[in-house]
Amino acid sequence: MISDKMMNLTRNNSVIRAMFEEGKAMAKKFGPENVFDFSIGNPNVPAPREIIDSIADVVNEYDPLYLHGYMSNSGYESVRDAIANDLNKRFGTSFSENNIIMAVGAAGGMNVALKTFLNPGDEVLVIRPYFVDYRNYVENYGGIIVEVECDPKTFMPDMESLKAAITPKTKGIIINTPNNPTGAIYTAAVLDEMAKVLTDKEKEYGTSIYMVSDEPYRDLAYDGIEVPYVTRHYHNAVVVYSFSKSLSLPGERIGYIVVPSEIDDYENAFAGMAIATRILGFINAPSLMQLVVARCLDCKTDISYYDKNRKALYDGLTNLGFECVKPDGAFYLFMKAPIPDDREFCNVAKKYNLLLVPSSSFAWPGYVRIAYCVSYEKIVNSMPRFAELAKEYNL
Amino acid sequence: MISDKMMNLTRNNSVIRAMFEEGKAMAKKFGPENVFDFSIGNPNVPAPREIIDSIADVVNEYDPLYLHGYMSNSGYESVRDAIANDLNKRFGTSFSENNIIMAVGAAGGMNVALKTFLNPGDEVLVIRPYFVDYRNYVENYGGIIVEVECDPKTFMPDMESLKAAITPKTKGIIINTPNNPTGAIYTAAVLDEMAKVLTDKEKEYGTSIYMVSDEPYRDLAYDGIEVPYVTRHYHNAVVVYSFSKSLSLPGERIGYIVVPSEIDDYENAFAGMAIATRILGFINAPSLMQLVVARCLDCKTDISYYDKNRKALYDGLTNLGFECVKPDGAFYLFMKAPIPDDREFCNVAKKYNLLLVPSSSFAWPGYVRIAYCVSYEKIVNSMPRFAELAKEYNL
Repeated sequence: MISDKMMNLTRNNSVIRAMFEEGKAMAKKFGPENVFDFSIGNPNVPAPREIIDSIADVVNEYDPLYLHGYMSNSGYESVRDAIANDLNKRFGTSFSENNIIMAVGAAGGMNVALKTFLNPGDEVLVIRPYFVDYRNYVENYGGIIVEVECDPKTFMPDMESLKAAITPKTKGIIINTPNNPTGAIYTAAVLDEMAKVLTDKEKEYGTSIYMVSDEPYRDLAYDGIEVPYVTRHYHNAVVVYSFSKSLSLPGERIGYIVVPSEIDDYENAFAGMAIATRILGFINAPSLMQLVVARCLDCKTDISYYDKNRKALYDGLTNLGFECVKPDGAFYLFMKAPIPDDREFCNVAKKYNLLLVPSSSFAWPGYVRIAYCVSYEKIVNSMPRFAELAKEYNL
Repeated sequence: MISDKMMNLTRNNSVIRAMFEEGKAMAKKFGPENVFDFSIGNPNVPAPREIIDSIADVVNEYDPLYLHGYMSNSGYESVRDAIANDLNKRFGTSFSENNIIMAVGAAGGMNVALKTFLNPGDEVLVIRPYFVDYRNYVENYGGIIVEVECDPKTFMPDMESLKAAITPKTKGIIINTPNNPTGAIYTAAVLDEMAKVLTDKEKEYGTSIYMVSDEPYRDLAYDGIEVPYVTRHYHNAVVVYSFSKSLSLPGERIGYIVVPSEIDDYENAFAGMAIATRILGFINAPSLMQLVVARCLDCKTDISYYDKNRKALYDGLTNLGFECVKPDGAFYLFMKAPIPDDREFCNVAKKYNLLLVPSSSFAWPGYVRIAYCVSYEKIVNSMPRFAELAKEYNL
């Protein structure tokens, strides 16, 4: 009796979310210390002290009618202004409040951007492997996902595959760097190469191809690697940012969209996104949290915590004989399954109370995603379990 | 270059939201004390003290990883449980946490419910006059709005019109009581009559017709009028509630959906709504605010404040010769325009710095909506302006 699409989704619900629920059930059964749930990107570093202080400050300082009231659908002007200035300082851009729309997290921002850009039947490119819900976001608006290949060694997009995938119906491309699930970070050279391919095709077909850059992991880069700012590399890029990971606020649903003035049809795109924010039911990003994050723009999560996990996990698993991609950013390790069937491998891992996400959920078979946004102790204690798993496969 | 639908919406943007922006601009120009902005339903009674205290309490009591982290997409179990118990106590229902999905406000909840129920081409009934964005919410999922008439004296749905509007393609009906824009409250007898019509048609066509009851104004009823709980009157009703008006938190985007166990295909509907919450990009209702409202369920806004405004406005305007509907609930007064063209009348009102919403935005020409969720002083001071307006029309 519910819609066909939703019925289909209830039958094939997100493996990641199903595992999150399963992990909670297993923790009840076996005790949380005996379950190694690497399924979900739920930060384990607490929100910085500044967040807690800022919540107290805004509650004390502002009239509750302002603090909890409606503002423009695009967000408080003061907050958008503060974010624009912060981006300009960090990335040499020249944004104003008229380039920023506050969003209900990155997932909310992605939906707003896609709703604004897509006519039914429009094609949207994604680079394999990719976050499973991109397909749902695109299909929400009648768009069609077109997959682009990557170099399986570096996980950088393959330019020939990109070129071949673009048609006159191509309306957008979603990129995600630092990447979920691989941890890869696109270099400036890669972005420039992509920009050239896209711009050439725009000229060839007389179209606009909007890049939607999903950047919840922007501030999680290791070894001093800089994450290039995409609007400086491509003229039709919008950025969707979230404070979920950088300030450990995933439950609060707070982020923003950057809509540069130089994108094609900027004025309608900006106005359209403000309207999409309203008619999709977000109305606006949560008001108190808008005012809180605006005061914490200089503040970042302690990435040394994740970095320590990253190294322990990578070293531990490679020592056990597993083949892993060394992540440059985000908090996921992409590990090759020792058998082709990644779902089967995840089921076997579950015997050892190890909850891993099969990579076929990311349209890339044969791997697992291990979210290392957990306690260091959890990683250390999981190693004997991984050792048993390795033994089962004679590694 | 943006989508055709969104381009169309940017051209015909919400009159209400446009006025909200215009009101802010006029306040800058003329001084806020000289502008009488009755355009938007932004509560003027501050959030109760308990909200402010509860924010401080949850920040102090909870681990930030829990307070700001991901939970199940449907919301914290403890919060859903508290809400279910509160509803059971107040309305004699028998809900559990498995009947509650936390939502990003009522607008978010409406989108989640409609996304879950609608196949493209499904028809959704609305009763004129109705909140303008219902059309957008339904069309987001390819649904088709079918308008049902009301009794223009009582603004209760016309049962013959309802009967005539139902086809085998009818998948849902949206009701909104207390009503925006009229302030009408559906009686138990009206709900029973509607239920009979709907149930008979369900049997005739072998279909399920889901009622989606949009209830942001449930707790704003005057003169001791009880707002009947719709799930006790119709077997296929879901309720979408928001704390925006009852606790003056519209910017925080916090509400919930009630999915009773007795609705057709309950299990898929509940699972589907949890998934719709995720894939539409809400992910979950804002976490801190979930925990805050769960502690404030006994707490309601001071409706005597709105009631005083209601009386002053109704008496003032009728004394000036305007014809008004006396509202039983919500915080809107529906006033007949002295000329047939309500948009023209609103433009004339603007000369006196009176911002009123033309009723053609609610698919009901010839009226204006006056939001009286403003200060009492504002109502008193607006009266000389309304007097001049009345004079212009020789009332």
